[in-house]
Amino acid sequence: MLQISDKGLAIQASPIRKLVPYANKAKARGIRVFHLNIGQPDIATPEIALEVVRHMQISVIEYTDSAGNHTLRSKLAGYYQKLGIAINEEDILITTGGSEAILFAFMSTLNEGDEIIIPEPYYANYAAFAVMVGAKVKAVTATIENNFALPPISEFEKLITPRTKGIVIINPNNPTGYLYSQNELEALAKMVKKHNLYLYSDEVYRRYCYDGLPHFSVMNIEGIEENAILFDSMSKRYSECGIRVGAIITRNKEVLGASLKFGMARLCPPALGQIAAEASLDTSDEYFHRVHQEYVQRRDFMVEALNKIPGVVCPNPKGAFYSIVKLPIDDSEKFARWLLEEFDYNGQTVMLAPASGFYHTPGLGKNEVRIAYVLKISDLQKAIEVLAAALKVYPGRTN
Amino acid sequence: MLQISDKGLAIQASPIRKLVPYANKAKARGIRVFHLNIGQPDIATPEIALEVVRHMQISVIEYTDSAGNHTLRSKLAGYYQKLGIAINEEDILITTGGSEAILFAFMSTLNEGDEIIIPEPYYANYAAFAVMVGAKVKAVTATIENNFALPPISEFEKLITPRTKGIVIINPNNPTGYLYSQNELEALAKMVKKHNLYLYSDEVYRRYCYDGLPHFSVMNIEGIEENAILFDSMSKRYSECGIRVGAIITRNKEVLGASLKFGMARLCPPALGQIAAEASLDTSDEYFHRVHQEYVQRRDFMVEALNKIPGVVCPNPKGAFYSIVKLPIDDSEKFARWLLEEFDYNGQTVMLAPASGFYHTPGLGKNEVRIAYVLKISDLQKAIEVLAAALKVYPGRTN
Repeated sequence: MLQISDKGLAIQASPIRKLVPYANKAKARGIRVFHLNIGQPDIATPEIALEVVRHMQISVIEYTDSAGNHTLRSKLAGYYQKLGIAINEEDILITTGGSEAILFAFMSTLNEGDEIIIPEPYYANYAAFAVMVGAKVKAVTATIENNFALPPISEFEKLITPRTKGIVIINPNNPTGYLYSQNELEALAKMVKKHNLYLYSDEVYRRYCYDGLPHFSVMNIEGIEENAILFDSMSKRYSECGIRVGAIITRNKEVLGASLKFGMARLCPPALGQIAAEASLDTSDEYFHRVHQEYVQRRDFMVEALNKIPGVVCPNPKGAFYSIVKLPIDDSEKFARWLLEEFDYNGQTVMLAPASGFYHTPGLGKNEVRIAYVLKISDLQKAIEVLAAALKVYPGRTN
Repeated sequence: MLQISDKGLAIQASPIRKLVPYANKAKARGIRVFHLNIGQPDIATPEIALEVVRHMQISVIEYTDSAGNHTLRSKLAGYYQKLGIAINEEDILITTGGSEAILFAFMSTLNEGDEIIIPEPYYANYAAFAVMVGAKVKAVTATIENNFALPPISEFEKLITPRTKGIVIINPNNPTGYLYSQNELEALAKMVKKHNLYLYSDEVYRRYCYDGLPHFSVMNIEGIEENAILFDSMSKRYSECGIRVGAIITRNKEVLGASLKFGMARLCPPALGQIAAEASLDTSDEYFHRVHQEYVQRRDFMVEALNKIPGVVCPNPKGAFYSIVKLPIDDSEKFARWLLEEFDYNGQTVMLAPASGFYHTPGLGKNEVRIAYVLKISDLQKAIEVLAAALKVYPGRTN
């Protein structure tokens, strides 16, 4: 027999995407499927980004610099400086989406068997990238009862071994929507410094923080300049997930240098996406004001509507556009499949991301799902009506 | 000290790209640099591909399917069928350039410490992807004296151990331009079958074969359906290197399934690139006829001009747009740097890719460079004049 590698056998299908074939079958049966499973906003991409692509004056779509176009990197540095984050072009490597930023940073800093600690639930693809580099994930559990706040530092300390090399923090959090405070991050940084760890900080939802709460970047914590590695992405900020443009930002020259060598192997990030990304950085405040308001309205609507359903608990997320929602069900994966395969409400159903896929500890998240509030309110309303109707008749209902 | 991973330390800067900073410095001094180092053709991207991007009617640049757009995959299957290669949409995973195809296929089939055999010189990035998965490259040496033909199968057999998992073949070859015959490939396939190995076949230059010689795909060899894994890319065929769209093609469902799971982790290949790629598949025969003719003229010009320079040997490549050229020098890496740092001829110089970076065996390729004939003849002529002048005065000249 030809061998499939250990990693090829270990890699799990994304919990966000693996039910897609069932959704497609439902659609083929004529059922309308509301996608609450994936962070694919229906928000328009800034017109300025689409226009620049439509008017590009090139006759050859060439490779770009492996580190990304100089013009994009320098403009992105300016973006951070405006946010009060002192970053130069030399601290930036443009990547093919935030995904590649994670891969290259992990590849540059983790050996087979090394360990990283992540508060769970966490963005499931971190587990996949850990598989790719052979690193082991250890998880500290954040709970819905505590609104998914940062678990006590002592819980991290308990998991630290000589193989521990880094901590991953996603802020605002995907999938919980939790926004970490400056205090929480400084406590984390102190521990990172004490144990000489990397702090991988995923700040791709930075622009979407609510209720007047500020975003605090780990790049602004003194004393961890060499430890902090920022993952960024254009996807969510400008609703242009398909362009596949992200970045590794770090003042650690060795990490960026190694990442660039991995980057040379893949030649360059997408040229057309970089054109769109560069233009996106000129997006008006008015656009963000409008989109911000839209997400707040959706969140407020969703939180209220979900909490009205008997047995459902939806915390009030302070950032990003996700919430982990507790449902009165036996198994969210079974429920999500049942919704697509066996249920419809007036010809409609919903696709949910089972939360179990976002937890590392087996058994957790079985009665939770991640909901992305990326649909306009009229659709969100229909989707939540469908969910309420489904919960009434789902055979695996628990209370 | 914070750790850089073993792979981060092992990864080598691409021999094609690592001298770029020196080229930039030369340009800053006002020197015109002819780029013979990189396979970045000056050939226009098909207008049909540019037009479809300019006229795209979308308001949100969304994620696509992780396997790539269905419309692209189905059209690409049609492309293979027209070539007489029986491939279905289900055998195709669209990747972010051919680079990601290599990474995902290696990741799905190779364990740390597994071995792959590649005829050297070979496209240097295979070494980088081998580092990424922790595989070991073993090389059988093809020689310029033999026009870089496939070394005898017995040479491969000598290197096979219980850890050998696959053979990589690049056809037409980058960096040699050698086009493998059906006989050579069938002999290779027989050995692959006998030892139960994967046959990774990189056929991204398929469209550019010269002198009436046909291209033969390993996908058309019976009996190795499960072994054969094809790497393809739009980059070179349609002169659109920047779109970053490639593919893994294999009838091995386990390999494609594992690769798709790695693909889910990075969400999707570039959406804009996929739009361009899909349109590119409608490129007219007239375009290919013209481009084909152009490359033949460039090759003929280059081979003749280079062989006229005393001490220079340039084989006549039958495919792709590269040649490995032997020069009367001590060290091609030193020479390439010297050309950028210390030499100019009437304000012009050339950038070459030292061939040592394409060899696995230390010491080989020191008096060879890879030349990409991707410039129009008037520029090629100037570049070769510069090279001839440089060889007259280079302090490390050997004969």
